[in-house]
Order: sequence, then C-alpha cells, then structure tokens
Amino acid sequence: MPFSSTYLFQGLSESRLQRLNEVAKEFKAVKGQWLFQENNSADRMYVLKSGAVEMLTRVNDDFELPVSIIRSPGRCFGISSLVPPHKYSLSARCAEDAVLFEIQRKDLQQLTQGDSTLGYTIMANLAQHLLDRLKETRQELKIHFKTLFRLMHS
Amino acid sequence: MPFSSTYLFQGLSESRLQRLNEVAKEFKAVKGQWLFQENNSADRMYVLKSGAVEMLTRVNDDFELPVSIIRSPGRCFGISSLVPPHKYSLSARCAEDAVLFEIQRKDLQQLTQGDSTLGYTIMANLAQHLLDRLKETRQELKIHFKTLFRLMHS
Repeated sequence: MPFSSTYLFQGLSESRLQRLNEVAKEFKAVKGQWLFQENNSADRMYVLKSGAVEMLTRVNDDFELPVSIIRSPGRCFGISSLVPPHKYSLSARCAEDAVLFEIQRKDLQQLTQGDSTLGYTIMANLAQHLLDRLKETRQELKIHFKTLFRLMHS
Repeated sequence: MPFSSTYLFQGLSESRLQRLNEVAKEFKAVKGQWLFQENNSADRMYVLKSGAVEMLTRVNDDFELPVSIIRSPGRCFGISSLVPPHKYSLSARCAEDAVLFEIQRKDLQQLTQGDSTLGYTIMANLAQHLLDRLKETRQELKIHFKTLFRLMHS
C-alpha cells in the first residue's frame, strides 16, 4: 500500500487507504520540473514515491529561500489543497527525477464528505503536522531574533 | 451561545455548540495570572469571554518574546491540548483581568469520539488556523532574514 507511511493517512484502515489509492494518479517528473508555485490555486496534493522534491519560497523576487527537501517515500506535500483558501503557500520543484502520486482536491473532498471518520483522521494528522511545523518555524525565528539582537548590540 | 464566534467551532450546529457549552467551565482570572507555561502538559483549552490574554515565549531564559495578544471575545487558545504530544507551545498570561471558559481535553475527546462530524469540523478549523499562523510566521522569518542579509552586507 503506497500510503501506509504517509503521515496524513496514519491510523486509517486498509480499506480507507485502498479508497485513497483508487483516486491517486501515479506520474513521473524530471529534475528541475515545477510541480506548483506559491500563491497559485491549490487543486491537488502529492505523495512522493521516489526521488526528491524541494520546497521553497521567493524573497522579494530577489532570491529563492529553501524551506525543506522531501526525500522520504510516502511523504506528502501540497497540503494547502486541503485547507481554505486553497492556495499553495510554498513552491515545489523536483530536486531529482521523481515518481509521484497526485490526489485531486475534489476527489479527496468527495471521499471525506461520505466518511467523516476518514475526514477526521486526515484533519487531525494535518493539524499535528502543522503545529510541529509552526513550532519549528517559531524556533528558527527565535534564532534569527537572537542573531539580530547580537549584531545590533555588538 | 458563547462559542458561536470561536473559529475552532465554526460550522457546528446549535446542538453541538450546546454540548460543548455543557462541558465548558467559566472562571475569572486576574491581570498577571499565568494560565499555562510552554512545554507543560496541555490538558485544557480556553475561550476568552472578556479581558485580554498575552501569548509569549522565552528566548534562552533571557527575555520574553511576545507572540500575540488575545482581546476578541470568543477567541480560543491552548490549542496544543487538541494535538499530540499535548504540550503547550507558548505561555499564556492575563494582560488584563479576564473571564474565560476552560474545556478539559478529556471532555472534548469524549465528545469527538462519539461524533466524528464534530471532530472533523474542529480539526479542519484547527488545520486552517495553524496553516494561517504558519504562513504568518514564515513571513516574519523572511523579514528577519532580509534585515540580517542587509546588516551583514552593509
């Protein structure tokens, strides 16, 4: 089952994983290929099967700021597609040739509408992931804050 | 209904809001009173009825870094109680005398276990809130990054 290690789908029964598998489409992407750009409409999420994808953001159109690199099979991204206003908050580009699954937002919505336990599990997993990312980002902010403080008082 | 404007409970029916109301306990807190400290076990969430609460974090035990101030009635906080590992990620202290509702984690868990639609709605609202906070925090990080970049190249 390709999604058994995907954090978003942790705790789902085999039959629910199977239903997700049925709406997922496998495809290949090449190194350097953009999967989506920040601020664009988030219509689908992705699960990595193999290869690597980098998540990044642009600072003032001046330069790219890398946020993370996704290498673990089963890792998902494009989760802004699950949450209003459904706009990607980062850009995603293949760092290596990759094999991916894509799941359309409308297909996932259809599944969760008919099965609130599925919806609850996915949303609870998503909330946990986002809280972890928020804590990490706050931690980075603290480090920058301290560096800035030191520079300005040195 | 005290929770009709609480973002976490948006989209819930009157009867579900009523059930939440039944497990909530109203209490008063005075200016300067700590409601919880970061890294402590997160056993309850809070909804503000009146007054003000500041959310903050400590940097290296050297100084307090304010994160936000909560003034809008109906605003909730202590949401780490809803997500494993159930540890507060920030501290909360009354910035003014306040009236609050507290909801025990175990009571909320009991409600959602018997009603996955309730659980789904709350978790979907939470995920949306956390994604917004994550975007804001990343934005702050970008600003710090740019300031640092300028300072180091000036």
